[in-house]
Amino acid sequence: MDKSQRPRTTYHTTLINEDGLIGHAYAVGADEIDVKINTTSNDHLGTNPEQLLGLALTTCFNATLEAIEKRDGYEHRTKVKADVDQAHDTHGFQFFVDVTVYIPTDEVDRQTAQAWFELAESRCPVSKLVSGSNNVTFTLVDHWED
Amino acid sequence: MDKSQRPRTTYHTTLINEDGLIGHAYAVGADEIDVKINTTSNDHLGTNPEQLLGLALTTCFNATLEAIEKRDGYEHRTKVKADVDQAHDTHGFQFFVDVTVYIPTDEVDRQTAQAWFELAESRCPVSKLVSGSNNVTFTLVDHWED
Repeated sequence: MDKSQRPRTTYHTTLINEDGLIGHAYAVGADEIDVKINTTSNDHLGTNPEQLLGLALTTCFNATLEAIEKRDGYEHRTKVKADVDQAHDTHGFQFFVDVTVYIPTDEVDRQTAQAWFELAESRCPVSKLVSGSNNVTFTLVDHWED
Repeated sequence: MDKSQRPRTTYHTTLINEDGLIGHAYAVGADEIDVKINTTSNDHLGTNPEQLLGLALTTCFNATLEAIEKRDGYEHRTKVKADVDQAHDTHGFQFFVDVTVYIPTDEVDRQTAQAWFELAESRCPVSKLVSGSNNVTFTLVDHWED
């Protein structure tokens, strides 16, 4: 989409990585997030693109479900988990992302749960961004295991 | 892709959001990342899917560039920025993500910089996940402005 044709921005943020694989990455502005970045192959503390992507996707999806619950007059009870796997690709690495969506059986019937699940997948902005990838799955479940 | 046909996992992590829009989200395991989540519409501290996605993408892209620099015998000097905009969509919201990639002019000539840029875009796992979206752009620049 041509940038001039985009709808009006309702929120803007700028993120920067200067250090590469090890160091930190941050959002521009006072009091904004600054995270310690590290490789996935050593024991030092820090996060990585796999975790940051999974946090973005689970939070976006569950916040979307929360909005649907609120619309329909329910308290927020849904939970979302993402299992992110790194694996070799033809060139470089690839990530596989499996999103598990829990809507309690004593909250709504399964037909409603399925409708909520499909609506959230179609509305969550991060889901939309990765919807063209075959490496991402979304699954609705009746039971939650941490 | 059928999960049974996936290549062997080289790293696995699990991310959870239970709280929705306001609260926290975290990676499973001791000493793993736990971030405070908040809405984009108030002044309370916390991060959000826009920032987490931008951190994932900038870190992934710059780490990929760093690997290319190392392969070619250069010190790491590249920087990557993501401008993330939230806007209304036909249904719900959408994000626009504009990634700016800086490779210093006194590091390599522009032909090499362009080749590095294109190679990184094709290899970065997060770029691959969003490559089907028209809402994401990647631009190589000669000058860096924070």
